[in-house]
Amino acid sequence: MEKMTYKNSGVDIDAGNESVQLIKNSVRSTYRPEVLGDLGGFGGLFALKNYDEPILVSGTDGVGTKLKIAFMLDKHDTIGQDAVAMCVNDILVQGAEPLFFLDYLAVGKLEPKKVAEIVGGVARACKESDCALIGGETAEMSGFYPRGEYDIAGFAVGVVEKKNLITSARVKVGDILIGLPSSGLHSNGFSLVRKIIFEHKKFKPNDKIDGLQKNIGEEILTPTRLYPATCLPIIKKFGEKLHGMVHITGGGFYDNIPRALPEGLGVEIDCDAWNVPTIFKLLQAWGNVDWREMFRTFNCGIGMILIVDELAVDELAAHLNENYEEFYKIGRVVEGAGVKISGGVFND
Amino acid sequence: MEKMTYKNSGVDIDAGNESVQLIKNSVRSTYRPEVLGDLGGFGGLFALKNYDEPILVSGTDGVGTKLKIAFMLDKHDTIGQDAVAMCVNDILVQGAEPLFFLDYLAVGKLEPKKVAEIVGGVARACKESDCALIGGETAEMSGFYPRGEYDIAGFAVGVVEKKNLITSARVKVGDILIGLPSSGLHSNGFSLVRKIIFEHKKFKPNDKIDGLQKNIGEEILTPTRLYPATCLPIIKKFGEKLHGMVHITGGGFYDNIPRALPEGLGVEIDCDAWNVPTIFKLLQAWGNVDWREMFRTFNCGIGMILIVDELAVDELAAHLNENYEEFYKIGRVVEGAGVKISGGVFND
Repeated sequence: MEKMTYKNSGVDIDAGNESVQLIKNSVRSTYRPEVLGDLGGFGGLFALKNYDEPILVSGTDGVGTKLKIAFMLDKHDTIGQDAVAMCVNDILVQGAEPLFFLDYLAVGKLEPKKVAEIVGGVARACKESDCALIGGETAEMSGFYPRGEYDIAGFAVGVVEKKNLITSARVKVGDILIGLPSSGLHSNGFSLVRKIIFEHKKFKPNDKIDGLQKNIGEEILTPTRLYPATCLPIIKKFGEKLHGMVHITGGGFYDNIPRALPEGLGVEIDCDAWNVPTIFKLLQAWGNVDWREMFRTFNCGIGMILIVDELAVDELAAHLNENYEEFYKIGRVVEGAGVKISGGVFND
Repeated sequence: MEKMTYKNSGVDIDAGNESVQLIKNSVRSTYRPEVLGDLGGFGGLFALKNYDEPILVSGTDGVGTKLKIAFMLDKHDTIGQDAVAMCVNDILVQGAEPLFFLDYLAVGKLEPKKVAEIVGGVARACKESDCALIGGETAEMSGFYPRGEYDIAGFAVGVVEKKNLITSARVKVGDILIGLPSSGLHSNGFSLVRKIIFEHKKFKPNDKIDGLQKNIGEEILTPTRLYPATCLPIIKKFGEKLHGMVHITGGGFYDNIPRALPEGLGVEIDCDAWNVPTIFKLLQAWGNVDWREMFRTFNCGIGMILIVDELAVDELAAHLNENYEEFYKIGRVVEGAGVKISGGVFND
């Protein structure tokens, strides 16, 4: 009888080693001075600087079925940014500086070049967020994912001095909500997106749509915006004048904004404050989706909200203008729980 | 036209909320005093105690296609331990105390009770490792995983004082390798395991096999041993006398032992030092697997190795005996790179 081996059971250790060779330079390019050791250790090592009362803030997320769009377009160099962004944007809103990131990549069949594209995207996004990519797992799971398909999840750790931790405690009535634009759909709601675009409307990924600059596939694959470069300087500069931050992730406006508010307070948002981008309007019209459902599922053009003391709004606006950052005053904090959205598309 | 919603696209937010209700008590049961906040924050918060030079050690891993065995047996309460163990055992070998853990769970269809079983297993393993479960993501990815199937990955962070970090620097010729038993296959090599057992031998999960206490399915689903409870006291007590540690994970003896050795040193291992458990002997015989391949793919009965100064072996043996821990002197460090295994099954 022929000898059975791990390789002929569908797991190719040589392909795994080849992948490591292909990604090691991009991984090392993300290293901050605090990183000790190199690829190949059992654990990733990070020397934490001195803090009085360091709070480690961590988050994990995947990119959901946005992956299906990457498979359709056979484009794998941006989905890593989605994984990084979904995690670092989550830890950022508690005031934390992202320190390091690890990725989990599960593939049906290990193709080293494709792995290098995916992890290359992770590494670029880490570098852009000044976050070291200090670990990862690439699992070849034959018979689990179809050939060519994969799943990716990310894990980010950041740190903040306890006194600078952003909780809901500082938020008060009259605070102003400043919205920062999203780069597109980000990585939420893709089961609905795919159903509307590919099942209901029967579009092909390369179809051109009036009003969109890119093909429909490329439009919805646009990677999630990384907010650390914009928001970390604001966190440092504004300190206690910054009362809260909201990452508009799964659950949209309705589920995420209350996570940043103390009990008994709510917000009023005016949709006329910004133009809801075309892709959201198209999805709403194509799927006859209730606008309330749209704002519970998608970011509708606003991926991050800064909640700021009314007296500091002009200073924050000046800072954002000086840094050529687009922003909108989208609402304010009010008495009474709940998220009330009015104006704009709600009145059409 | 009927209104389309996120829910009728296959993502059930209510089922997600129900899952959170079902798991929250088991998650909270893992909290250490350093955990701030509660479920539902954007990031998990952990207040790090005072260290002179804290090194954060982190690791990520999945459980590979061991998941297929959980699906076959429709048993989901132990696979979480595998996810935790694969991660905490990795960070432990660098001398780190596991602090907190996050899990990523991707499901085809969100079934709250099944999620509660899976995450309940994660939580129990975290508690047993004194590691707080401070975050997680449960993603419902319809059309991605078949109904009833899921993938799980874990992320663990630990801490160690820089002076206590275990690197390869202390390992020297003459050091003794002490092996601690595995609980079974742990979570590596399952593509080969499944191929031998279910494709080649055509066993059914409930088949009884001579020499095994459990059915073949239950035997191979046995969760990965958590080593923190045994090893953390040794790390503390033996300090610099403990020269190295090796987690026998993917790549077996041949790939993992060298990760703990300085350049130019190798090990000689004597297989007569312990009884290779029956399941490994059966897999080898059924698949006509070369024993070298066995030791490159599986732990063959030894899941963790302590590399200890020759002069401290008796003290370590006494400590292990006092704590009723099973252990074997399996080999020693020698001049010249490489892992040489002889005796035992290699001579049969």
